[in-house]
Amino acid sequence: MIVVMKLDASSQEVDAVKSRLENLGFKIHPIQGVKRLVLGAVGDRKVANSLNLESFPGVEKVMLIMKPYKMVSREAKEENTIVKVGNVEIGGSKVVSMCGPCAVENEEQMIQIARAVKEAGGHILRGGAFKPRTSPYAFQGLEEEGLKMLARAREETGLPVVTEVINTQDVELVAEYADMLQIGSRNMQNYSLLKAVGMTGKPVLLKRGLSATMEEWLMSAEYILAEKNYNVVLCERGIRTFETYTRNTLDISAVPLIKSLSHLPVVVDPSHATGNWKLVAPLAKASVAAGADGLLIEAHPNPPEALCDGEQSLSPRNLQRLLADLKPFLKAVGRG
Amino acid sequence: MIVVMKLDASSQEVDAVKSRLENLGFKIHPIQGVKRLVLGAVGDRKVANSLNLESFPGVEKVMLIMKPYKMVSREAKEENTIVKVGNVEIGGSKVVSMCGPCAVENEEQMIQIARAVKEAGGHILRGGAFKPRTSPYAFQGLEEEGLKMLARAREETGLPVVTEVINTQDVELVAEYADMLQIGSRNMQNYSLLKAVGMTGKPVLLKRGLSATMEEWLMSAEYILAEKNYNVVLCERGIRTFETYTRNTLDISAVPLIKSLSHLPVVVDPSHATGNWKLVAPLAKASVAAGADGLLIEAHPNPPEALCDGEQSLSPRNLQRLLADLKPFLKAVGRG
Amino acid sequence: MIVVMKLDASSQEVDAVKSRLENLGFKIHPIQGVKRLVLGAVGDRKVANSLNLESFPGVEKVMLIMKPYKMVSREAKEENTIVKVGNVEIGGSKVVSMCGPCAVENEEQMIQIARAVKEAGGHILRGGAFKPRTSPYAFQGLEEEGLKMLARAREETGLPVVTEVINTQDVELVAEYADMLQIGSRNMQNYSLLKAVGMTGKPVLLKRGLSATMEEWLMSAEYILAEKNYNVVLCERGIRTFETYTRNTLDISAVPLIKSLSHLPVVVDPSHATGNWKLVAPLAKASVAAGADGLLIEAHPNPPEALCDGEQSLSPRNLQRLLADLKPFLKAVGRG
Amino acid sequence: MIVVMKLDASSQEVDAVKSRLENLGFKIHPIQGVKRLVLGAVGDRKVANSLNLESFPGVEKVMLIMKPYKMVSREAKEENTIVKVGNVEIGGSKVVSMCGPCAVENEEQMIQIARAVKEAGGHILRGGAFKPRTSPYAFQGLEEEGLKMLARAREETGLPVVTEVINTQDVELVAEYADMLQIGSRNMQNYSLLKAVGMTGKPVLLKRGLSATMEEWLMSAEYILAEKNYNVVLCERGIRTFETYTRNTLDISAVPLIKSLSHLPVVVDPSHATGNWKLVAPLAKASVAAGADGLLIEAHPNPPEALCDGEQSLSPRNLQRLLADLKPFLKAVGRG
Repeated sequence: MIVVMKLDASSQEVDAVKSRLENLGFKIHPIQGVKRLVLGAVGDRKVANSLNLESFPGVEKVMLIMKPYKMVSREAKEENTIVKVGNVEIGGSKVVSMCGPCAVENEEQMIQIARAVKEAGGHILRGGAFKPRTSPYAFQGLEEEGLKMLARAREETGLPVVTEVINTQDVELVAEYADMLQIGSRNMQNYSLLKAVGMTGKPVLLKRGLSATMEEWLMSAEYILAEKNYNVVLCERGIRTFETYTRNTLDISAVPLIKSLSHLPVVVDPSHATGNWKLVAPLAKASVAAGADGLLIEAHPNPPEALCDGEQSLSPRNLQRLLADLKPFLKAVGRG
Repeated sequence: MIVVMKLDASSQEVDAVKSRLENLGFKIHPIQGVKRLVLGAVGDRKVANSLNLESFPGVEKVMLIMKPYKMVSREAKEENTIVKVGNVEIGGSKVVSMCGPCAVENEEQMIQIARAVKEAGGHILRGGAFKPRTSPYAFQGLEEEGLKMLARAREETGLPVVTEVINTQDVELVAEYADMLQIGSRNMQNYSLLKAVGMTGKPVLLKRGLSATMEEWLMSAEYILAEKNYNVVLCERGIRTFETYTRNTLDISAVPLIKSLSHLPVVVDPSHATGNWKLVAPLAKASVAAGADGLLIEAHPNPPEALCDGEQSLSPRNLQRLLADLKPFLKAVGRG
Repeated sequence: MIVVMKLDASSQEVDAVKSRLENLGFKIHPIQGVKRLVLGAVGDRKVANSLNLESFPGVEKVMLIMKPYKMVSREAKEENTIVKVGNVEIGGSKVVSMCGPCAVENEEQMIQIARAVKEAGGHILRGGAFKPRTSPYAFQGLEEEGLKMLARAREETGLPVVTEVINTQDVELVAEYADMLQIGSRNMQNYSLLKAVGMTGKPVLLKRGLSATMEEWLMSAEYILAEKNYNVVLCERGIRTFETYTRNTLDISAVPLIKSLSHLPVVVDPSHATGNWKLVAPLAKASVAAGADGLLIEAHPNPPEALCDGEQSLSPRNLQRLLADLKPFLKAVGRG
Repeated sequence: MIVVMKLDASSQEVDAVKSRLENLGFKIHPIQGVKRLVLGAVGDRKVANSLNLESFPGVEKVMLIMKPYKMVSREAKEENTIVKVGNVEIGGSKVVSMCGPCAVENEEQMIQIARAVKEAGGHILRGGAFKPRTSPYAFQGLEEEGLKMLARAREETGLPVVTEVINTQDVELVAEYADMLQIGSRNMQNYSLLKAVGMTGKPVLLKRGLSATMEEWLMSAEYILAEKNYNVVLCERGIRTFETYTRNTLDISAVPLIKSLSHLPVVVDPSHATGNWKLVAPLAKASVAAGADGLLIEAHPNPPEALCDGEQSLSPRNLQRLLADLKPFLKAVGRG
C-alpha cells in the first residue's frame, strides 16, 4: 500500500498514519518525494481493505498495490480450471455451446428447442424458469414447473441443463433440477445468493453485472470460491455504456484479460450483449477468436412468438447455421 | 406503439405484424412516410411489454409511446406522496435528515452517534447491520446484534431507524426492529427482495442502482407499489461513470426530474455519491436547492476508526456544522 | 512514481527498470512487499509522463503520485483567480449570469434578447456565430455577420459578449469582436485551438468535454495557461452517461472538487447539461448552492422558433423569473 | 416524425403544433391513443432536424423515425465502398494491416519499422507527425520533419502512408506527403477539419470519438462525403466506459453493425482500444472474425524506448508473429 501525504501534512499527521499502520502490523518505508512524503506500507492486503486512511487528516490518497482477489487469481493457481457440467467440460480443449430460450414457456417448446440444440451440436441446454424482469407486469417464469420441463428436456436429449436462480430461498430447489446454477447480471452483487450457490458445490455460471468492473466481477467469484466451491465459470454479457444502437456493449477485451488474471473459464453471451439476433453470429465468431471457452446463445423454436427476448433469439435453423459456421474459427484457435 | 417497417418490407411481412397486433387487441393506424411505412398501434401498454415485434421479419424498430410504470407515475396520482417513518414525514413541508454510520459497530458507537445526530437536529437514524461488501474478506455486519443496537439507540433518542435488508429471508427480522427498510443499490433489481419488502407494508428507502436508468429505478419502485405498499422513498446516490476523481457521479438532475415524473419523495445520499466527506456539505446544499425531500448522510463518532466508509463519514462536529449551514438553503426553498 | 514489479520478475528485469529510471535522474527506493517488489522513484513528473515503463518486461503496473497539471493547480496558486470580462469579474464575490441564445439568428433577435438579459439582471451576453453541429445539414451559424450582431447588442446594452470559436483560423476574427472566447465541448481537446486562444490573451471559457475526466479538463486549461494566458474560466456542462431521460448528466460534484484542485473559476451550464428548459431553474439553484462562480443559461425571445436548442432555452419571462428566484440562494452562499 | 402530446394538452396547443408542421410542408396523421394524442408527421428529415417541437407547450416528446445520415447509409448505396490508398484496397477482398509507431521519432526508427512492417506482411505504414497530447509538456511530434521521414520510409518500402492531421491549417501540408489522412478521436467532431479533409479528396481514416455514438460517428463521416469525398474508412478504437483495467473498451459490435448501416469500410485499432500490447493479438483476431476490413496496429522497433504509447506497441518480432497468426482467421472469413 502507498499512502500519499498532502503537501502541507504536519509531522503529527504523518505520525498518526504511521502508528495506525504499525499497530496493524504494517512495516513502513517512507519516501521523501520532490514535494511530498509518500509512505510505502508492507503488510496484509485483507487488513488494508478495512483501513480508513483516506479519512486521516494529512492524507491525500491511498493506492493499493495488490489485487483484492486471492483464490480466483492466476497467481493462486497457475493451470486453467476445468468445470464439469454433467459430462461436459468447460475450460478444457473444446469451446462449449450453451443454447436455449430466454424463458421456459411450456414442455413442447423446451423439448423442441432441446432437440434442435442437440442436433445443431450444442453441448448444454439453457432456459429460465425464474425470470428477473424489469417490469412487475411482465412474464415472471414458470418456476418449479419450468424446472421440471428442463429436466424432461434433459432426459430427452442427454444435454446437461443450466438455469438461473434469483433467490436464496430457491437455491436448493433449483439445485435439485439443474446441472449448473446461473447467477444473472442483476444478482452479481447479491452476496447472500453467491454464498448460497457457493455452498451447494454445484457448477455456477456467474454473469458479469451490467456495470461491474472486472475487479468486482472477480470479487463476486471470490465469494463463491470462499465457500469452497471452485466450479465457477465467468460469463461476459455486455456492459452498460452510452451507446444505444446495441442493448449493451460486449466487452470483448474481458475474455483475454480475465483469462490472464484468473484460472477460471470465461464464456460469452452475444445474445444479451447486443439484443439483436443478427449480431449474434459475428460476435460469437469474435468471442471464439478472442479465446472464449464457450458461448451462451439464446435460441427459440419460433422467435417472434417468444415470451421474452425474441428479438435476440436464433431460430433452430439459424442456430444450426451458426454452430456450423463457427467450425473454421474453432479450428483457427486449435479447439476444433 | 409505433412500428417502423423496413424500406424493403414485403406486404406479407406488413400483414404478419398487423395481424399479430390485431389479435392482441391493438387498433392499427398505418402512416405511409416518405420512404417507409410506419404503423401506429393503439392498445394496452402492458401487452406491448411482452411483444417481440422486433424479431418479425420486415420490422426495423419499435418505439413505445407510454412509460412502462403506472402506479408510481405522477399521472396516476397528482399530489405528492408523504411517507411517514415513525413520527417523521418524508415528502412533506420539511427536508428530512437521515444520519448515522455506514455500519453498526457496537452499542457505544451507536448511542454516541445517535445522540450526536439528535443534537445536530437530524430526524432519522441510519446504520447498517447487514452489509453488502465487495470483498468476502471485509466486515459483513453484526446482523441481529446490530439491529438490537439500533433499537436501543432509538429508545435513547426517540429517532426512528432506517437500516438495510439484503436478503428475503431476513426481511421479517429486519422489519421487526426497523422503522424503514433500505434496499441498497446492489439490490435495486433484486425483485424477490422488492416483493418481500413490499409485502411488509413498512416504509421502504429504495436506492438507485449503480447504473440504473431513472426508468428502471421507477420500475423497481413499481414492484413495491404493486404489493400495495405505497410508502416508498427514492434515494439518488450517484451513478457509475468514467470519472474517477469521485466514487460515483451524483445525478442531481434526477431530483427535479423524478419529482416531475412521480409522486414519490426523493432524497439524496451525498456521502456515497462522492465517497469524500469534504464534498458532502456542498452537495447536500445543492440537493436541497434542487428540491430534494431529504438527505442521507454518513456520520461516525470517529471517522478514521470506522469499520467502513470512514473516508466519506462526517464527524459529529462536522455533521452539526452541516445541518446548521443548511438552514439558509432550507429557507430559500421555503422548507425551513 | 511507484513501479510495481511482477511476481516473477527476474533480477535482470528489475535492473533494466532501475537503470532506465536512474539514467533519467530518478532516485530509486526499493520496497520488498509481502509478495512482490515495488520501486519508489523520485524525480521529475514531466519526465515521468514520457516513460514507457509499462512496456518493460517484468513490470506489472506504474502508478503516478503527482497530478499531471501544474499551473492550474491550487498548489501552484493558493488564492482564487478572478477573470475580468469587460467590467465583469468571474470568480470574485458575485455569481455571474451569462445568458443568451444558442445561435445568433438575426439582429432583431439579438437586440431583443440582449435587452431581456440586461433587464433580468444578467451580466454577460452569450450567442453563437460559429456553430458546431452534429449534422452537416443543420444551421451552421452566421459567422462574421453574427459576430457583428453580437457587437451591436453589446453597444445597445453594455453587456460584454462571449461567443464560441471553432477553428484556429477564426480565432483572430472572433477575438476582434468578443470579450471572451468560448471553447466548446467538442473542441476541449483540440490542442491547436487551445494554443491559439491562449496566445490571444483574451478571457477563455473552457467547456468540459462530453466525456472528459476532470483531470483531462484541467490539462486542457493547462495548455492555455502554458501560453501565458491566465484568464481561464472552466464550465461544467454535463457529461455523457447511460441515462437517456436527460441530454447529459450534470456532474455537480465537479464544482466543489475543481475549486479545491484549482484556483480557476468554475461556472455551470444547466441548459446543455439537461437539454430541458424545465430543469434549468432547479439545477441553476443547485449550482449556486454547490459554489459555482457563474451560470451559462440559454435564453431566446421565442424558444419554439429558435434555430437550435429551443427545447432547452428560457423565454425572457422565464429568465427574469429564474434570476429573481436565485436571489435567496445567492444570499445563502453569501454572494448576494 | 412522431409527436407525443401531453395528457393534458389543450386543443390550442395541438393546433399550434399542427400548424407549425403544416407550414413546413409536413402531412399530419393524428392517432388518438388510449390516453394521449399522437401526431404522425410525414415530411423532410432535414427539416425535422431544425424543429423545436419539444419547446412547444403541450408536447411531451418527439421521436424521429428516419436516421439522420444519408450519403453514408447502406440505403443510399447498397454495394460496399472500396477505398484505394496507393495501390492498397480497403473494403475489398483482403483484410488490410496498417502498422507503425504512435509517433515518428527519427528517420532511422521510421525506416527500421517500415521494413519490419513490410517484412511481416503489413500493407500500409502509419506514424504520427502531429501528435495531439493530453499534456502540453509531452512530446508534440516532429511536424513537417516527421512527414518527410514518413515519405522516405514509403520510398524505401513502397508502403503507402497514413498519418494524422489535427488542424485545418496543416491539411494541405499533410496531404502533400500522406496517402491517407487520419482524423483522430479527439477531432471526430471538429467539423472544420472534417470539411477541410473532405475537400482534399484524399482517402480519410475517421476514428470514432472517445464517447461518440455510432450515429454521431456516421454523421461525422457524412460531413466528409458532403464535400464529395467518398473515400472514408471508419476506425473503431475503443470507447470510454467505467472499466479501468483497459484503457478503453473495444466496441466490437460496431464492426458488424456499422457494416449493416453503411457501405463504408470499417477497420479496428486494437492498440488504442486496450492500451496493452498483450491484448492486441486476441483482439486483432476477434476483429477479423467480426468482419473488420482492416487493422491499425502500433509497432515500434523498441517499445520500451518509444516516445509515446510504448506499452501498447508491438515489437517487430511480435508484429511478425501476429500477422502470421492471423492467417487461419483470415481464411476462416474467406479473406485469406
